[in-house]
Amino acid sequence: MSERLIVVSTDCHAGLQIADYKPYVESKYHEIMDMAVPIQVEQMSKAEQSFLIKEINDEWRAPIQQQLTGAWDYDERLKMLANDGIAAEVIFPDGITEMNTPPFGAGLGLSPREANPELQWAGAMAHNRWLAEFCANDPARHIGVASIPLLWDVQQAVEAVKWCVDNGLKNVMIPTMWGDNPAYHHRKYDPFWEICEDLDVIVHVHSGPASTHEYFGPEWPAVEDKEAMPGAMGIFVSEVMWWLARPFTYLIWGGVFERYPRLKAVMTEGGIFTLPHWLEVLDHAYNDAEYSLKMGNFRSHLSMAPSDYFARNIAIGASCIGRTDLGLRDRIGVERLMWGSDYPHPEGTWPHTQEYYTKTFSGIPEGDGRKILGENAIDWFGLDRNRLQTIANEIGPDVSIFQ
Amino acid sequence: MSERLIVVSTDCHAGLQIADYKPYVESKYHEIMDMAVPIQVEQMSKAEQSFLIKEINDEWRAPIQQQLTGAWDYDERLKMLANDGIAAEVIFPDGITEMNTPPFGAGLGLSPREANPELQWAGAMAHNRWLAEFCANDPARHIGVASIPLLWDVQQAVEAVKWCVDNGLKNVMIPTMWGDNPAYHHRKYDPFWEICEDLDVIVHVHSGPASTHEYFGPEWPAVEDKEAMPGAMGIFVSEVMWWLARPFTYLIWGGVFERYPRLKAVMTEGGIFTLPHWLEVLDHAYNDAEYSLKMGNFRSHLSMAPSDYFARNIAIGASCIGRTDLGLRDRIGVERLMWGSDYPHPEGTWPHTQEYYTKTFSGIPEGDGRKILGENAIDWFGLDRNRLQTIANEIGPDVSIFQ
Repeated sequence: MSERLIVVSTDCHAGLQIADYKPYVESKYHEIMDMAVPIQVEQMSKAEQSFLIKEINDEWRAPIQQQLTGAWDYDERLKMLANDGIAAEVIFPDGITEMNTPPFGAGLGLSPREANPELQWAGAMAHNRWLAEFCANDPARHIGVASIPLLWDVQQAVEAVKWCVDNGLKNVMIPTMWGDNPAYHHRKYDPFWEICEDLDVIVHVHSGPASTHEYFGPEWPAVEDKEAMPGAMGIFVSEVMWWLARPFTYLIWGGVFERYPRLKAVMTEGGIFTLPHWLEVLDHAYNDAEYSLKMGNFRSHLSMAPSDYFARNIAIGASCIGRTDLGLRDRIGVERLMWGSDYPHPEGTWPHTQEYYTKTFSGIPEGDGRKILGENAIDWFGLDRNRLQTIANEIGPDVSIFQ
Repeated sequence: MSERLIVVSTDCHAGLQIADYKPYVESKYHEIMDMAVPIQVEQMSKAEQSFLIKEINDEWRAPIQQQLTGAWDYDERLKMLANDGIAAEVIFPDGITEMNTPPFGAGLGLSPREANPELQWAGAMAHNRWLAEFCANDPARHIGVASIPLLWDVQQAVEAVKWCVDNGLKNVMIPTMWGDNPAYHHRKYDPFWEICEDLDVIVHVHSGPASTHEYFGPEWPAVEDKEAMPGAMGIFVSEVMWWLARPFTYLIWGGVFERYPRLKAVMTEGGIFTLPHWLEVLDHAYNDAEYSLKMGNFRSHLSMAPSDYFARNIAIGASCIGRTDLGLRDRIGVERLMWGSDYPHPEGTWPHTQEYYTKTFSGIPEGDGRKILGENAIDWFGLDRNRLQTIANEIGPDVSIFQ
């Protein structure tokens, strides 16, 4: 093995500022986009003022304004990757701090709340067109995750997956929450899982969305009354990982991985702190199914335990995993654990990633460390290891980080 | 200590069959009740045919028809308590298997889904009137939990609590889920917490409700399509404990126990399997609050960690706890753990409770066993220990169950 480590960030973000998506939006939507953009910009600004702490973000942004444009500027992006020692990256949309997000509510998590299906598709496909161009600069290094608003017309989603593959995108993100639409155990989604399995397209769910209208009030972020609903942020932080794992509860129990055994899925930016217990609960329900007398046998459609599907079909984009969580790696399976820098979000490791490597991985066995930082992602996403090693030989962190 | 143990079941159920509540319902609602009852009976019947397995329940019920009438017949009730060795019991409403539930959707969990506030109050107060009468037979042994549909008019809830106390009921149940209404961190509920603290009324949340419209479809139980939504029951079993703990997440983060430090609450029939991790997640969010840079300090309104409020203000009605869960007692605090038989539900220990005592508590230290089976409940609910010991000397299980 080389002295220089191949690092793959499985959680990076990129995208244009909203108005700049216009050339990528079908022209028939331009007029409504002109009306919608100022409203969405105002909403994001309000969200940053209440949900996030704008003052803290402003302070954080001030010295790195130029570097933050790597969210959409390719040359800045390459500098960021070089400084962070990252050979390849998986790219999701959005960054509130940079106000970059697709129009029409087609951003991270693809929330169905107040979304117009036709417009959300228009926004998502605009982002996908831009993303395909951006990644085409160097497809071995930039693994774009296309946005698929799956909740509406499933056939449209199937066609979109084909478009993605034709345009070099073999990873897709689906909504983290489904609102009042059928959940992911519903068989209406089967054609989507089928096409993803057939075309080796990996399905991602990204953390962030949660039941914010319950925490902050139904009109948040337009109206928020912190006096009336104290503790809302604590509830958000306590629940957000549950909302990320939830789609996988439905996929597993719904038999999706039973019917599509080669389907691959990733849960991103949830860390791993809550996962061992989540799997214990699923397995407990499965193993106790025979004993839940009055409910009958509700597991006969599954050929193995939930944790077995997890081990076979699901990987974890654990993002900026810390030392405490690293200690849980064997409880969740070190083969499935993938790091991510979360650039350009303030909660990520950037711009202090080099420091992070040493601080976090010092004392971790080299084999485990290599897997988590890059080798697992190379296997999972089928990346070009030789090409990435060549890049890593120039920019990758040294194996001494494990000492 | 006596050789005969004082057993308190903190999870029993009692109530009339729906139509029999009529004398307890205000006469102005009689006409609408005549129309509503057949619909509700049909819904319960459908729920048993799909959600539960009617055949299994029928088989279970067949040999114990007479004993099941203890759900509303006082003499049968005393026989059940004697056979089970139970000196005192905490009484919740409902039993699908016996078709006993208050009218107008005022049953266990007080679901807000499709509820009419005025009618749900009418049904709840009818049950409370009956319950007050039932418990008046022997208030030292029967601790009734009144139903309070808290989500609507909070002042009405305050008045109802006063009525309860005047009528011998010092325990109340609030809805497990709030639907689209403000959640329990909202300060609109403060007058309710305040009156409960002032009058030493204990607030209960009971397990059972979950997001069934997501699992089984929005029209369940009227329409259920098992082919379209496989795994729905597995998802229910995997999530139901989370939905029970959730109100306490809101109460704790909402600062309710900070503002009302003497308020006591109970979570019932959730076992304890999921609780240590739930508390770890809350504490983790609390302890990491300072480091969640972009969200600012969101814990300053709390003077201690979530698990500290849990230890001070919350008890667990763990119901039919098994040996595996008993092993977790020190992780959750043995002082707060209370047993319950769940009579007359098929998943309960009845009619094999005596067998259960030996099978489950054999080898458990006597001190811990006494606490879980009765002593904790005596302290928490302020019961008359001397009176209960006198009863236990006649019917209580022998201390030898711990051998």
